[in-house]
This record gives sequence, C-alpha cells and structure tokens, in this order.
Amino acid sequence: MEFDTIAAISTPMGEGAIAIVRLSGEQAFNIADKVFRPVKGSVNDFASHTIHYGHIADPETNQIIEEVMVSVMKGPKTFTREDVIEINCHGGLVSVNKVLQLLLKHGARLAEPGEFTKRAFLNGRIDLSQAEGVMDLIRAKTDRAMSVALNQMEGRLSKLIKKLRQEILETLAQVEVNIDYPEYDDVEEMTHRVLLDKSKQVRDEIKKLLVTSEQGKILREGLSTVIIGRPNVGKSSLLNSLVHENKAIVTDIPGTTRDVIEEYVNVRGVPLRLVDTAGIRETEDIVERIGVERSRKVLKEADLILLVLNSADELTHEDEQLFEAVEGMDVIVIVNKTDLPQKIDLPKVKQLAAQHKLVTTALIEEQGIDELEEAISSLFFEGSIEAGDMTYVSNSRHIALLNQAHESISDVIDSVEMGTPIDIAQIDLTRTWELLGEIIGDSVHESLIDQLFSQFCLGK
Amino acid sequence: MEFDTIAAISTPMGEGAIAIVRLSGEQAFNIADKVFRPVKGSVNDFASHTIHYGHIADPETNQIIEEVMVSVMKGPKTFTREDVIEINCHGGLVSVNKVLQLLLKHGARLAEPGEFTKRAFLNGRIDLSQAEGVMDLIRAKTDRAMSVALNQMEGRLSKLIKKLRQEILETLAQVEVNIDYPEYDDVEEMTHRVLLDKSKQVRDEIKKLLVTSEQGKILREGLSTVIIGRPNVGKSSLLNSLVHENKAIVTDIPGTTRDVIEEYVNVRGVPLRLVDTAGIRETEDIVERIGVERSRKVLKEADLILLVLNSADELTHEDEQLFEAVEGMDVIVIVNKTDLPQKIDLPKVKQLAAQHKLVTTALIEEQGIDELEEAISSLFFEGSIEAGDMTYVSNSRHIALLNQAHESISDVIDSVEMGTPIDIAQIDLTRTWELLGEIIGDSVHESLIDQLFSQFCLGK
Repeated sequence: MEFDTIAAISTPMGEGAIAIVRLSGEQAFNIADKVFRPVKGSVNDFASHTIHYGHIADPETNQIIEEVMVSVMKGPKTFTREDVIEINCHGGLVSVNKVLQLLLKHGARLAEPGEFTKRAFLNGRIDLSQAEGVMDLIRAKTDRAMSVALNQMEGRLSKLIKKLRQEILETLAQVEVNIDYPEYDDVEEMTHRVLLDKSKQVRDEIKKLLVTSEQGKILREGLSTVIIGRPNVGKSSLLNSLVHENKAIVTDIPGTTRDVIEEYVNVRGVPLRLVDTAGIRETEDIVERIGVERSRKVLKEADLILLVLNSADELTHEDEQLFEAVEGMDVIVIVNKTDLPQKIDLPKVKQLAAQHKLVTTALIEEQGIDELEEAISSLFFEGSIEAGDMTYVSNSRHIALLNQAHESISDVIDSVEMGTPIDIAQIDLTRTWELLGEIIGDSVHESLIDQLFSQFCLGK
Repeated sequence: MEFDTIAAISTPMGEGAIAIVRLSGEQAFNIADKVFRPVKGSVNDFASHTIHYGHIADPETNQIIEEVMVSVMKGPKTFTREDVIEINCHGGLVSVNKVLQLLLKHGARLAEPGEFTKRAFLNGRIDLSQAEGVMDLIRAKTDRAMSVALNQMEGRLSKLIKKLRQEILETLAQVEVNIDYPEYDDVEEMTHRVLLDKSKQVRDEIKKLLVTSEQGKILREGLSTVIIGRPNVGKSSLLNSLVHENKAIVTDIPGTTRDVIEEYVNVRGVPLRLVDTAGIRETEDIVERIGVERSRKVLKEADLILLVLNSADELTHEDEQLFEAVEGMDVIVIVNKTDLPQKIDLPKVKQLAAQHKLVTTALIEEQGIDELEEAISSLFFEGSIEAGDMTYVSNSRHIALLNQAHESISDVIDSVEMGTPIDIAQIDLTRTWELLGEIIGDSVHESLIDQLFSQFCLGK
C-alpha cells in the first residue's frame, strides 16, 4: 500500500539527552534531503541502515536548527515497511519541535497516535495481535508482563491462531468436497466424524488458551488490590512495606491521568495495582472515608483484598463485618502486630478466615512480609509460572473473541452430535474462523482498527 | 584518554515510542556483543555508523528482553569520541530498564549525569563552553535562546575566546623577547607601546562580548517578570492574554522542581518568566497575598514589572504607592479597561509613569496586546536582534569570567600608562589569559568540571 509521509516526535516529551523525530513514507528521503545537511553526500545516495552526522537547517532562511545524527532506513526492512528516517536530536523541547515543524512544512503530515505501528500492520509486517503486543510492551509494569507482551509482539499467539484457522479452513473444505461429491455411501457419516473430531480438537486448543487468560490478564493489567481494616491496624505500614520492598513501579508517568491514584508494586512478578492508596495514606481508613456503600463497590471490583487485623487488640464487631463484606472473594487475612502482647482470639480469626489465606506479621519489625508475598503469589499462580515459555492470552479483546469462538465451536459440536443438517454446523464453523481472524486483524472493521491504534502513544 | 565503559538511558523517562540505551567506552562493542543477537553477523564485525535489527537477550537464561535496532558507531567520530552503541528499544519502562541492567551486569557502569558530554570534553571533541551550550540547547525555552545555545555549542564563542588568548600569548612572548634581548635603546618604550595597544584591543573585544551578555542572559534565562496592581484591575486577564497569545512554553516538565511555580511565555522571541503566577491565579493580588515587605523583595529581583491600572476607576493612593515601589526599575504601565467609561486621571498617570513605557489596553476585548508585546520587546532589544547572526554571551559563569578578565586587562592598561614596572603588567596579562581559558575549560579545576557536568541530565 502507498500512504502519505508522516512525521512525529517518537521519544517521550521532556528534557532528555536524545530526542528522535521519525519520518515514514514514500517522500521520507526527499523531505529529509531538503532540511538535512550532512558532512558529505545526500540522503538519497546513502546506503540503507546507515547513520550520518550533520545539521538540520531551514532551506529558506539557511538558519541552522540542530546538530543531529540521521538514520536512513530503506523499506521494506523497516518498522513500517516504508522508507524511514530517524533524526536524533539533542533532547531540547524547542529544537526538537522546530525540526518537526520544518518537516511538516516540507511535505510531511503530523502522524496520528499509533500511526507508525498502524502502517506496520496495514503493510503486513505485523498482525493486529502483534501490534497490540507492541503497546503492551511499552505499558508493561513488570518483567512477566513484559515477557507476555514480547511473546505476543513476536507473534506467538498469532501463530497459534493461524494454525487453528488453517485447520478450520481445511475441515470446511473437506466437508464441502464430501457434500459436492457424495461418491461413497458413508459420506454423511464420514463428514460428521471429521467435523466432530476436528471441532473438538479446535475447541480444546481454544480452551487451553482461555485457561491462560486469567493469569495473562493479571500479568498485563495488574491485580486490583484493596487494603482494608479498622483504623490503626497497620494499613499504612502494610502499604509502605509492599512499596518499599518491591519498589513502586509507577508513581508518576507523564501524560497519564492523575485523578485516579494508583500505585503498582511488583510482588514476585505479580503486579499489584494498589487502589485508593491516597485514601489510606491520608485518612488511614478507607471504609470510614468513602462510606460503607461505596467501599463495598470498591471491594467488589477488586481482584485481591488484604484484610488487616490488629492482634494486640480484641476482635471487634467491625472486624467481623469486614469478613462478611469480603465473603467469596480472594482475600488474604493479615494478623498484624504480633510483636506486641496478644489479645486477639486467634481460633476465632482462623474460623472466620477459613476460606482465606492467613498470614501473621509484625510489619513495623518487618516480620512476615516474605510469607505475605508468598501467599499473594501462590494465590494466583499455583505452581510455578514461566512467562517466558508460555503463550498467555492477556488482552481483553482477545479473551472476549476467544470466548465467542469457544461458544461457536461448541455449537458446531452440539449440532453435529444432535444430527442437525450439516449447513448449520458449517455456518458456526465459519463464524469460529472469523472470530479467530479478528484477533489477528484478518477480518476486522476499519473503525475498530482506527480505535485500537488511537490508544497508542504519539510517535509509535 | 581511556575510560571505563558507561551506559545510561538517554531518552526522557516515560512511556514513549522509542527509548534509547547508550553505551560508550572501550568495551562498548564487546558488551553489546554479549547481549545483542542480530539477524546476522556480530557487533564487532559491523561497519561503523550502521544500524542492525535484532533482539536483546540475557546470555545466561537465553530470555529475550527486547526487539531492538542497534546503532554501531566506532570512535573517534562519535559524540564522546569513544566507541558508542545506541540501542533503540520500544519505549517501555520495564524493558528499557532491563536492557540497561543487562549491560551493567556485563561490564558497563551506570553513567553519571552529563558523563557522555563530559567525555566529549575530556577527549577534546568539544570545549567547556561548547558543552555548556549543549545543555543550554536542551533547556532552551524559545527559538532565540536555542539559536544562542546552538552557536555556543558549535564553538562560536570558543573561537572568539581562543583568538583573544592567542593574541595575549603572542603579546606576552614579544614582551619577553624584548626584555631578554634589549638590543635597542628604545626597547622599553616599544614594549610599553605593544602592551598598551594589544591590551586595549583585547579589552575592547571583551567589552563587545560583555555588551551582548545582558541580552544573552535574558535569552537564556528569560526575563523574570512580575505583574502587580490592585485587585480587579485585570492582572489575571493580562496573564491569560500573554499565555494565550504566546502559548505557555513550560508548564510542567518532568524532573523539574514544582515548588516554584513559574510560567514561560515567548513574547516575540523574548522569554518572559512569569513569577508567582499561582499567586495571581489564586488570589488575584500578589501584594496583598505575600505582604508588602516580601513583595518588595520579589519586585527587586524582577527584570520587568508590569504595573496594571484600572482606567475605569479613580487613581488610588495604593496605585501611587506601587509607582513608588518600582521606581528606577524596568516597568511597563498598563492602563487597562479602556473599553469602560473612563474615570482615571490620565495626565496624572502619565506624570507618574514619566520614566516608564505606557500602554493602554482593554484586555477583555483583546485590545492593546500587540502594543504591549511591542513595548516588552523594544524595552530589551532596541532595534532588531538577530540571534542567528550574533555571538551572545549568555552563561552567568562566562559573564563573570569576562568581567574579571575585563578588570585584569584594565589593570594592565592602567599600570602601563602609569609607568609601573613591566612585570606587574605581565602578571595581570597572564591572569587575563587564564580567566579567558576558564571559559573554554582550558585551565579549570577538576571539581568545577565535575560540578558543571553534574547539572546535566542523565544519559547526556
């Protein structure tokens, strides 16, 4: 495909050592040629994948704007498959902007968010799930999330999906042949057999992928975690311990909304997204602060509840109410302050926490944190996980499509088993094929593609 | 010189499309070789200034960490004059950090702030004033500031300074020769003549540079500007007009202190640093808010005062006090609200503002803003300035050294004119030579160099 030439600043905004302005498209070399003054030669003569020192100057005023290194990359062996120019500037806001403006003045168009990656997709270098992997990689908060994204970007999921689709396609073809050329008596039975066997096989594969999705989603998005407990049981200490021991991953990323205050901590590869930490820090009491009704809503949306009790105090009615509020959820009960004289009715606590994990800690003394982390990690990853070796489905869009595909392939199996006419099964099987195709962007509506890429960052 | 190999992330922190990890030093290629898996070949075999696609992988675990483009640049034609590797990653925080960690694990040391530029200096590629120009370029807030920095980075100031030093050195040599070989009778007179002529010439050149320094400093650092006036005269409107018309340049740069709230606006190339804008926004009254004593201090430190009067109101005692407070300073008096029925005693205002510029505005109606901008620009740049064509001295350190050099060369002239023994003049002249040398880093103490570069950003 042929597009116009786009340009954008591809490094984060801010003062830095290096800033990159990227150009991609048919006119990339010609536009660069107009504004770049290399020490010798000219852009159009340079070999592909070489770097050149020189200056960016306004050809009309001859004013020099930046001292740069220009990377020249000839398509199709580039990120977008088009001709690509990368201009490495000293990282000043003004000069980088001036370089960009100059490119726009000489024929480039300002790229939309994600447009470089979109071109990589539209030009067939990567499929949609790979493109989504690129963005997940950028947003990854932990090593494991990074590995999951990297695998996806490298096309592991795509390969599996393509294999499944190929098998479906072959099955559909075979069914078609059998219907068109009913040379043998047992053709109907054979068709049913093939359909049933293959469909079950495909269903099992989809199921296998869906099994990874719960963990995959956690790795990608983090476990939404809420700390609850009465005032002064040690919620702040818990928060500080988690943040301290594991380093907060994201405290302040430019460009993200600051309304919702969240902190990420990486607990043995599991990213905890600590919700409403500001509330805890400020008032030491989430339940009190946001009211019982709202706090129940916060609890309901959480993936993990850390319920803190003060073992140096009697168990109160309020504590018991907290147990009721979190019934049926993933909870770790933390019996804190074991360094002080014990007053709590431990057998009673154990009874209340029968469905939950229980850890004793003396957070002020830094005791029990290891056990807590172990409990968190084993709650979500029974056994060991090796993100590097597995293909996780982590993206909500993919999970939704896999669920739909699972449903429609199950319909195929049902209708074959019930002896319904073969056309019905064909329709459902074709639908399964289409749904899987949407994951890799093979049969996706343009507006969805636009919407997906618009979530990318500028310059990517 | 030979140093160890350093590494750092050279793009601003944050989610972005591209992040760069930079390596510099003797072992740069070997370290990169350990962790980079190109599609073919290996780092040590690549031609200089070429770009290679591949993956970063941990050689111990074989785990792939990133999909990258690696730029290979062989010294001395590099930023640091050493072997340099630049690893272009997808801009995720986690993956970029992992790449950096891997390099550190395999023999690189984490670079200190400014250490790459420091090596460029220590390895003789640039001198100190050029290095300072690099940092000024990154921090430049306006086009003109950028031009000034770029000129400095490109060595314009250095060239002038070196020429002056060369002249001084030749003079000193000639004086020495005259003293050692007093073959002629008139040698003493000749020596005096040479010294006087040359010294005056050098002094004039230094003077010329110093003349540019006031404007240079403004271009580099911005004009510290304070808006004053009684409540409801239109200070907020003025602030908004300036910010709106000219776009605030810096509202929030990551990494800078947020305690002091300043806004930059670019008025016809003059960067105004609007001081205490938060105060104006919040209370509409700087004088009231911070108390008369403190506000006098703020006024005293300002380069420019914008004094706003409400022409729809009588001139009050408070207004007159403001005029007293700003006596002798650079003030523009803004008679605002000319769209309303006029009550102010304009002849009285003109009398009070006799020493200042006066502009009438109706800011709400967007009237008079052009005139105001013209007044601001002409107050500091009488006639036109062409930053692109001039060598401005803009750095406080340089200005201080030039002032000292001017003093010491004046001493030379004085002592020659007073007929003091020639040794005294020789000492002062040598001192001038040394002071000028400090500007370009020729005779600078190591601790000063460390301190200067530590103000650079990480990865530069």
